[in-house]
Amino acid sequence: MNKVTQKLLGLVSDLFGKPDGAYNIREDSLCAGRKSSEYIRIESKTDKPGIDIIVDAGAKGEKVYIPACVTHSDVDDLVYNDFYIGAGADVIIIAGCGIHTDGEGDSRHNGIHRFFVETGAHVLYLEKHIGIGEGTGKRVINPQTIAEIARDGFMEMDTTQIEGVDSTKRITRAVLGEGARLVIREKIMTHGSQSAVTDFEVELNGDGSGADLVSRSVAKGASKQLFRSRIYGNAVCSGHSECDAIIMDGAEVSAVPELTARHVDAALIHEAAIGKIAGEQIIKLMTFGLTEKQAETKIIEGFLK
Amino acid sequence: MNKVTQKLLGLVSDLFGKPDGAYNIREDSLCAGRKSSEYIRIESKTDKPGIDIIVDAGAKGEKVYIPACVTHSDVDDLVYNDFYIGAGADVIIIAGCGIHTDGEGDSRHNGIHRFFVETGAHVLYLEKHIGIGEGTGKRVINPQTIAEIARDGFMEMDTTQIEGVDSTKRITRAVLGEGARLVIREKIMTHGSQSAVTDFEVELNGDGSGADLVSRSVAKGASKQLFRSRIYGNAVCSGHSECDAIIMDGAEVSAVPELTARHVDAALIHEAAIGKIAGEQIIKLMTFGLTEKQAETKIIEGFLK
Repeated sequence: MNKVTQKLLGLVSDLFGKPDGAYNIREDSLCAGRKSSEYIRIESKTDKPGIDIIVDAGAKGEKVYIPACVTHSDVDDLVYNDFYIGAGADVIIIAGCGIHTDGEGDSRHNGIHRFFVETGAHVLYLEKHIGIGEGTGKRVINPQTIAEIARDGFMEMDTTQIEGVDSTKRITRAVLGEGARLVIREKIMTHGSQSAVTDFEVELNGDGSGADLVSRSVAKGASKQLFRSRIYGNAVCSGHSECDAIIMDGAEVSAVPELTARHVDAALIHEAAIGKIAGEQIIKLMTFGLTEKQAETKIIEGFLK
Repeated sequence: MNKVTQKLLGLVSDLFGKPDGAYNIREDSLCAGRKSSEYIRIESKTDKPGIDIIVDAGAKGEKVYIPACVTHSDVDDLVYNDFYIGAGADVIIIAGCGIHTDGEGDSRHNGIHRFFVETGAHVLYLEKHIGIGEGTGKRVINPQTIAEIARDGFMEMDTTQIEGVDSTKRITRAVLGEGARLVIREKIMTHGSQSAVTDFEVELNGDGSGADLVSRSVAKGASKQLFRSRIYGNAVCSGHSECDAIIMDGAEVSAVPELTARHVDAALIHEAAIGKIAGEQIIKLMTFGLTEKQAETKIIEGFLK
């Protein structure tokens, strides 16, 4: 793998050296390294670009790294990755995508990830997106996450896009069975003329299912953000959606959370707040010796932690 | 005016006998009574059905009644009413619409109300909708309220639709200038196979403007409700939207509140909650001697108060 990939892997997966577990490293639409482990098989798809990641039933404490890197301009990467998480397994999946542009051409990564979470399985899915490089070409990342969570399955998604991605459309769809749970924590920061769209849709179909979707974002410069979430309560279930955004400079932020209760025992809640950093918070930190800029940075760090 | 109108007036405007103030009573698309007062003129439109209500600048403590009644089946009423509220005036407008059907034919009232609230004026707008009668014809009420609120103007809307309206689409649009305020309190109850759609859109264009939109609803039977609100913060402003719904039986409720901040000093918040009546609330009231049904009724009354 090349030097840019090595740098990107550190940024998106905290990977420095060889991963401890199964892994597949994608570099400019090719495979730059792969390893299956005792309980996790990684296989190339035969009908389209991408891999199948098969986690054995009952596997515990396993990790799998599947970062994707685009290291130069003029790459249009499309990949389909399917995750089969066997019953009762407990696994951490470290995804993430880094794009480096070095020229005028745009580069794009579209990752379409499907999760089949079997009965009682637990998945922690970590996804970090970043853009770097001196190129003027746009860095575009459009992830799609489609999850089917079976009875008592539990999926946690922790996604972060802090800088350098010019355009992103993040689509997440989930269908939950009986007793299944989904927790999403999303953090986004945009600046310049970047745009970010988040689109969650969750169907709570099983009795006792629940979803908790929380998005925190900071919009700087002339960037634009749109947060959409739709929760359908079709059973005895609970759903919560929250979107908190800090708006700065000349940015624009929209929040459109949608709740639909189709069952008398569906309990659904959402909250959203958009506003700037409170002046008194900045003044407080300035009395501790920080400059206004430093105070602002500190508050944003805390907000996105 | 006929007996049905007299009954409907009591229900929608608490009017029994002559109103104390200016009034215009609409009965089956005709005028059943009108009176201007010293500071409020009511004039028929010449280009389309409807009236102009002109409130003099500085008029204080004035009231105007403008109920509309449909007293039988097969009426399709459409009316355009424009309200000109002079600078500094302080006025209460009691609108409201009652529909009585007695046959198989549907009856419909579409009221398109425009408000021009001048500098510093204050309007309290009360609007109650009801449907009665033994007819199988549908009772349909589609109100549109379009408000322009000038500097430091203040409009309060208090709208209630408790029973008997089979279908309603309630559209409210408001554009607020500097220091202007809008407060909306909406209460809706649907049952059977009724449907209710609420659609608010508020543009906060002036510095210091603010909107507070609160909707409370109860959906029973197989009824369907959709609550939409859009608040655009285009200036130094604050906006709040809240939708709380009790779902019962086989009803369906959707809440889609949308916030868009286009100014760094726009502070926007929304909240929504959909759920059934908490079991412990019912049990508590039952220990005081109420039946389950009575307890439920009590809780709903309190919720919609």
